[in-house]
Amino acid sequence: MAKIIIAKSVSFNAAHRLHAAQLSDDENKTIFGKCNNPNGHGHNYELDLELIGDIDPITGMVVNLTEVKHIVEREIIEAFDHKNLNKDCEEFKHLVPTAENIAVVIWNKLAKTKLKPYLHAVVLYETPKNRVRYQGPNND
Amino acid sequence: MAKIIIAKSVSFNAAHRLHAAQLSDDENKTIFGKCNNPNGHGHNYELDLELIGDIDPITGMVVNLTEVKHIVEREIIEAFDHKNLNKDCEEFKHLVPTAENIAVVIWNKLAKTKLKPYLHAVVLYETPKNRVRYQGPNND
Amino acid sequence: MAKIIIAKSVSFNAAHRLHAAQLSDDENKTIFGKCNNPNGHGHNYELDLELIGDIDPITGMVVNLTEVKHIVEREIIEAFDHKNLNKDCEEFKHLVPTAENIAVVIWNKLAKTKLKPYLHAVVLYETPKNRVRYQGPNND
Amino acid sequence: MAKIIIAKSVSFNAAHRLHAAQLSDDENKTIFGKCNNPNGHGHNYELDLELIGDIDPITGMVVNLTEVKHIVEREIIEAFDHKNLNKDCEEFKHLVPTAENIAVVIWNKLAKTKLKPYLHAVVLYETPKNRVRYQGPNND
Amino acid sequence: MAKIIIAKSVSFNAAHRLHAAQLSDDENKTIFGKCNNPNGHGHNYELDLELIGDIDPITGMVVNLTEVKHIVEREIIEAFDHKNLNKDCEEFKHLVPTAENIAVVIWNKLAKTKLKPYLHAVVLYETPKNRVRYQGPNND
Amino acid sequence: MAKIIIAKSVSFNAAHRLHAAQLSDDENKTIFGKCNNPNGHGHNYELDLELIGDIDPITGMVVNLTEVKHIVEREIIEAFDHKNLNKDCEEFKHLVPTAENIAVVIWNKLAKTKLKPYLHAVVLYETPKNRVRYQGPNND
Repeated sequence: MAKIIIAKSVSFNAAHRLHAAQLSDDENKTIFGKCNNPNGHGHNYELDLELIGDIDPITGMVVNLTEVKHIVEREIIEAFDHKNLNKDCEEFKHLVPTAENIAVVIWNKLAKTKLKPYLHAVVLYETPKNRVRYQGPNND
Repeated sequence: MAKIIIAKSVSFNAAHRLHAAQLSDDENKTIFGKCNNPNGHGHNYELDLELIGDIDPITGMVVNLTEVKHIVEREIIEAFDHKNLNKDCEEFKHLVPTAENIAVVIWNKLAKTKLKPYLHAVVLYETPKNRVRYQGPNND
Repeated sequence: MAKIIIAKSVSFNAAHRLHAAQLSDDENKTIFGKCNNPNGHGHNYELDLELIGDIDPITGMVVNLTEVKHIVEREIIEAFDHKNLNKDCEEFKHLVPTAENIAVVIWNKLAKTKLKPYLHAVVLYETPKNRVRYQGPNND
Repeated sequence: MAKIIIAKSVSFNAAHRLHAAQLSDDENKTIFGKCNNPNGHGHNYELDLELIGDIDPITGMVVNLTEVKHIVEREIIEAFDHKNLNKDCEEFKHLVPTAENIAVVIWNKLAKTKLKPYLHAVVLYETPKNRVRYQGPNND
Repeated sequence: MAKIIIAKSVSFNAAHRLHAAQLSDDENKTIFGKCNNPNGHGHNYELDLELIGDIDPITGMVVNLTEVKHIVEREIIEAFDHKNLNKDCEEFKHLVPTAENIAVVIWNKLAKTKLKPYLHAVVLYETPKNRVRYQGPNND
Repeated sequence: MAKIIIAKSVSFNAAHRLHAAQLSDDENKTIFGKCNNPNGHGHNYELDLELIGDIDPITGMVVNLTEVKHIVEREIIEAFDHKNLNKDCEEFKHLVPTAENIAVVIWNKLAKTKLKPYLHAVVLYETPKNRVRYQGPNND
């Protein structure tokens, strides 16, 4: 049976500030520019979750998308939507909330759910012009 | 010569109903939810056909897109556009027309044409938020 | 106080068939073409609801969008989403479900709710390339 | 000479919190819901600025778009991009930064520039699904 | 009977150069900047044609969109698609092909067809970020 | 440390003509159709540049996107934006400017910059419906 990839897109709106505690204020300003603004800024994040698996010969589905949606809403949307990532989310207390790091955090959160065997890629759009794609720790 | 992937996007509008003959009515309702509505519903399907090959050093093309368009229109659009997939299309008489199965059927139909050596992936959007990607029977 | 227009976009997926009972089969085929396919076809409809009013000086809002969303979901999405408009919806038993007629029906349904004083326009996309805009019975 | 409308789209990314000082904490929570989160959240705002005027018979333009772009960047983007609207922007110190109010503020800022005679509408998308349209104080 | 607006979107790809014969080379360069490049540049133009009329009580349509499509393809797409507007199109021999002027030309060409009584607006996107809207000679 | 892909989208507007010097006029017309129009036509090209690398544990970034943007603007946008690819760009004096060839040229130009170790793919949209993807000379 050949594999197929299914993708579900969801969105969340959040504030963040790029600032690394290990760097000086000047270094932070140089590296992060206007993203280092002390009071933060924000984005409409679009998350494209890609899952891979065999098509069930009876249902014609890899995994039930309604269940996927519930898991993503409970694990990701509830955690990040209408939040300040730096101040409201434990994961970013000591981790700069760049799109890169947010994508890895999303992967790791979903890897603790029943979606784990299906995880293929987390694609995260910070803006329509900037995105990252993370395919997990074993995909170099 | 390095390979390049070209993609052509087309769309078709169709009705479908998700219902598996092997399952009871209750099971169908539980698994497919509102997609099991007896009279069906429908979508604007967007098909992204990815083809791969070498760039011809004279024409600068992998394959003539005008010819690709004609083949896709004859094989796919004519078959599925403005149709009820369950009732009008032989392929889905005994196969649930999920996006997953439609993508595999599209691949198989195109694999019988002269596009076969170029087939790379069939990407099918059921809605702007739900899509599947099928890379053929040999791509696990 | 100046007026402001707010717009909320939602979507529903439905099947329909264009067929007028007052016309012969040949006339229906000539007028509606492939949209007259007996078993129907379908679309991802995108509804843009425009509301107009004064900005409340304290809340900075014309109307609470959360309440708007609930009303639209209850009155429109529940009625049309994952339905066959011709067979499942009373409104289209004797009315051809063209985008034009669907837009008028949506306006009339919302004109019976508390959104009535705010109704400005119903914009309905049948596909990303085809849309209609209805501004109510008094806007010629 | 007939009038023509030209529209220029730009975007800015900002954090905001919906909270009215005149309301109790409970009222704020009831009215603004998750948008009242104390640490704020954020959006990729898309601004569509519509200008109206006669086409110059020689240049074929209503107004030079390069100049429009510079004015919008200086007056709006520099003021709001990568900012926390509540904390960094004087205009929202005592005004809830709803999309409605932001649109009016943008209109008023541009009405102080040489674009004033051309201002037709400020359309502001807070998300791809929510937008407002303000046509100035004299357009009821 | 209330009026309804229907809109059909089509696209054409063309080259153009902004250069006014009445102006000096220096003035052209100052006014049109990089759009004055002697060898031209190009765009994927998106045309949104808005038509207005009464809904036919039997067909549920304002005007047959299939016929609209044929007229637009014959009058506009055939004239401008894959053309150099300045060199291949008579209309722009002595008229700068700005988006503003192209929109007026499109209106005038369609005003000579049977679509005339329905013409409401010509909306032309030069890029996803720049558009113009022309509502005819009597709509100031 | 796992790899992550970041993508930056930019656009440029250019004219081009598909015509191969090695072919007769008739062959050119047969192969390239309306894209062979002697005076050329044009497109809004969208370039999606994908870069791959490790996430820096301190900054949370693979590579500084502001620097990426400067390099792409200097090397690609300045070279191709508002240009006639055939007449203004040395690279296409003897190479047909198909999307395939433009993508390879973009890759090769960027492979001479400090982005070389990060280059993952060049995705180029000629229109929203046609795109190519080039992953470099070593990715068959």
